[in-house]
Amino acid sequence: MTIYDISKQAGVSIATVSRVLNGSENVKPKTRKKVLDIIEQCGYTPNVFARGLGLNSMKTVGILCADSSDIYLAKAVYHIERNLKTAGYHSILNCTGYDLAHKKEGLSLLLNQRVDSIIMVGSNFISENEKDNQYIRDAAKQVPVMLLNGDLDCENVFCTMCDDYKSMKEVTGRLLSQKIHDILFLYHSRTYSSMKKLAGYQAAYVSMDLPLSKDLTCFFNGSHEDIDGVCDYLCNLHDKGLRFRAVVAADDMLAVGAVKYARKMNLRIPQDIKIVGYNNSILSVCSEPKLTTVDNHLELLCSQLVKTCICTLGGTSQPAKTIFSGEIILRESANL
Amino acid sequence: MTIYDISKQAGVSIATVSRVLNGSENVKPKTRKKVLDIIEQCGYTPNVFARGLGLNSMKTVGILCADSSDIYLAKAVYHIERNLKTAGYHSILNCTGYDLAHKKEGLSLLLNQRVDSIIMVGSNFISENEKDNQYIRDAAKQVPVMLLNGDLDCENVFCTMCDDYKSMKEVTGRLLSQKIHDILFLYHSRTYSSMKKLAGYQAAYVSMDLPLSKDLTCFFNGSHEDIDGVCDYLCNLHDKGLRFRAVVAADDMLAVGAVKYARKMNLRIPQDIKIVGYNNSILSVCSEPKLTTVDNHLELLCSQLVKTCICTLGGTSQPAKTIFSGEIILRESANL
Repeated sequence: MTIYDISKQAGVSIATVSRVLNGSENVKPKTRKKVLDIIEQCGYTPNVFARGLGLNSMKTVGILCADSSDIYLAKAVYHIERNLKTAGYHSILNCTGYDLAHKKEGLSLLLNQRVDSIIMVGSNFISENEKDNQYIRDAAKQVPVMLLNGDLDCENVFCTMCDDYKSMKEVTGRLLSQKIHDILFLYHSRTYSSMKKLAGYQAAYVSMDLPLSKDLTCFFNGSHEDIDGVCDYLCNLHDKGLRFRAVVAADDMLAVGAVKYARKMNLRIPQDIKIVGYNNSILSVCSEPKLTTVDNHLELLCSQLVKTCICTLGGTSQPAKTIFSGEIILRESANL
Repeated sequence: MTIYDISKQAGVSIATVSRVLNGSENVKPKTRKKVLDIIEQCGYTPNVFARGLGLNSMKTVGILCADSSDIYLAKAVYHIERNLKTAGYHSILNCTGYDLAHKKEGLSLLLNQRVDSIIMVGSNFISENEKDNQYIRDAAKQVPVMLLNGDLDCENVFCTMCDDYKSMKEVTGRLLSQKIHDILFLYHSRTYSSMKKLAGYQAAYVSMDLPLSKDLTCFFNGSHEDIDGVCDYLCNLHDKGLRFRAVVAADDMLAVGAVKYARKMNLRIPQDIKIVGYNNSILSVCSEPKLTTVDNHLELLCSQLVKTCICTLGGTSQPAKTIFSGEIILRESANL
């Protein structure tokens, strides 16, 4: 029996059950009695209650991350661990890879470790296929689940994200305003965050009543470190006759690949081709010329996420979603 | 009472005590009896024994890392976690920062979590000041300690490393052979690994009977992401009259900073200035021109380290030190 079953039987929210278990004052006496009665009827105190009551808690949070060797995700894991430690919590890290079966397995390993909460780092944990998100909903019946850059409507799931849609729409809109209508959108994963970026790119065209060419939405099917591969991919598109005067990329690595492509084709940046990255990572400064990019304030996101996590564990109500805005960082690769 | 005390009283090695506790066949009956007698005299079974006996083990390893947002260290943590998981172990991550007090605190938090072993990622855990390594020696009395890119002579401490001395001596030697005698050595930390690189740089000069200039050993006192800061630092040295026709850097970030410096000074790479990085990270490919660098086979190091860890926990004797050779990767920034 889980906290979820109790909430169902009592006809109250999980948050309310959690508040009862934490001895919070913010519960009506009648509701409290109903919840406690149901718990008593169970006749025993499963782990999840012990945890809720602050008994037996290992003060440990499980961090799930597809690939912590990715520059962006590595930074996220780092900031989350640091914030958790400050709050007195240990971090168990599980790197799952991008395969659904391994994500489920990683999650289940962490739950078996009796963690107090699960933090999923990166939007790749949320699938467009709703069925593939069931494992997250199941986990949320046991412990609060925090999503970084992911969005899932579900009780006991808390989302902290950057508005990638808005940032990408803004970047694309500024290029369109400069009469550059052949903008290539470059991405390399179909994560929640990538899809939001794509939607923002498309929305900019639509809002300015400009035609969208499907050919300019380009998916690079390679590793997240393969700069040379991105360059070859764009050269190949060029050879096939595709022309574009700007590239907006879903991350800085892809944008650096576009820079390499421009150099190979003897295109001047930004005069002949404008290139915009995403994440404001070290790659954007390493690049020559330096990349105009979007800073999605990762450190702030992580600190907010941990705050939400700790407050939830403490039994205070938290907003289901917290959304920050990104910031366009202007450098040499595009004057927006 | 720790496993260390038992080994001292019995006059045998910690490895032997561990083998006895693990029920290994590889112990003389007489020795086994002596060890078991001492344990019996203690009258109780402390955690460390329970762990050794495979009882009560959480199958958890603690990973200490100064800064997992550093590209190189992030990759190390990733590979170590993946290898541990394959072996059935969980990873508790603790990012300590570079301050000794925080390192000690992080280590002690992990030990309180009753981890089976401690893995220290990165050479920054080993200090030149022997007194500052005592906390590692103390930890090794409780659990096996694995060092990645660190060297410490101590029972129950196992080191897996790349021979940075040899690689840096080779790189410097090849430049000297090209009659380039004004090579700047650029580093930004005084870790064990940095010191080995510096020693290799110096050894190349000495072995070719060439004079070393102290002015060419340059310490950049800034963050591990501050490419612009490195560029400014080198420009400043140039303004003060320092001249050099090559830069060998302790990591790729520093080398990219040198590339930016060369561009600012209108120096052609590699004709006017040769630049060599270290680590073969994504930065070396992102750079324009791409960096000649040293690959220290991090993935191999991590897999070996975890193998040593698991075998040690299983009670089989392991070499105290495992040393791999690096590999020079030739790209555009220096023809060696």
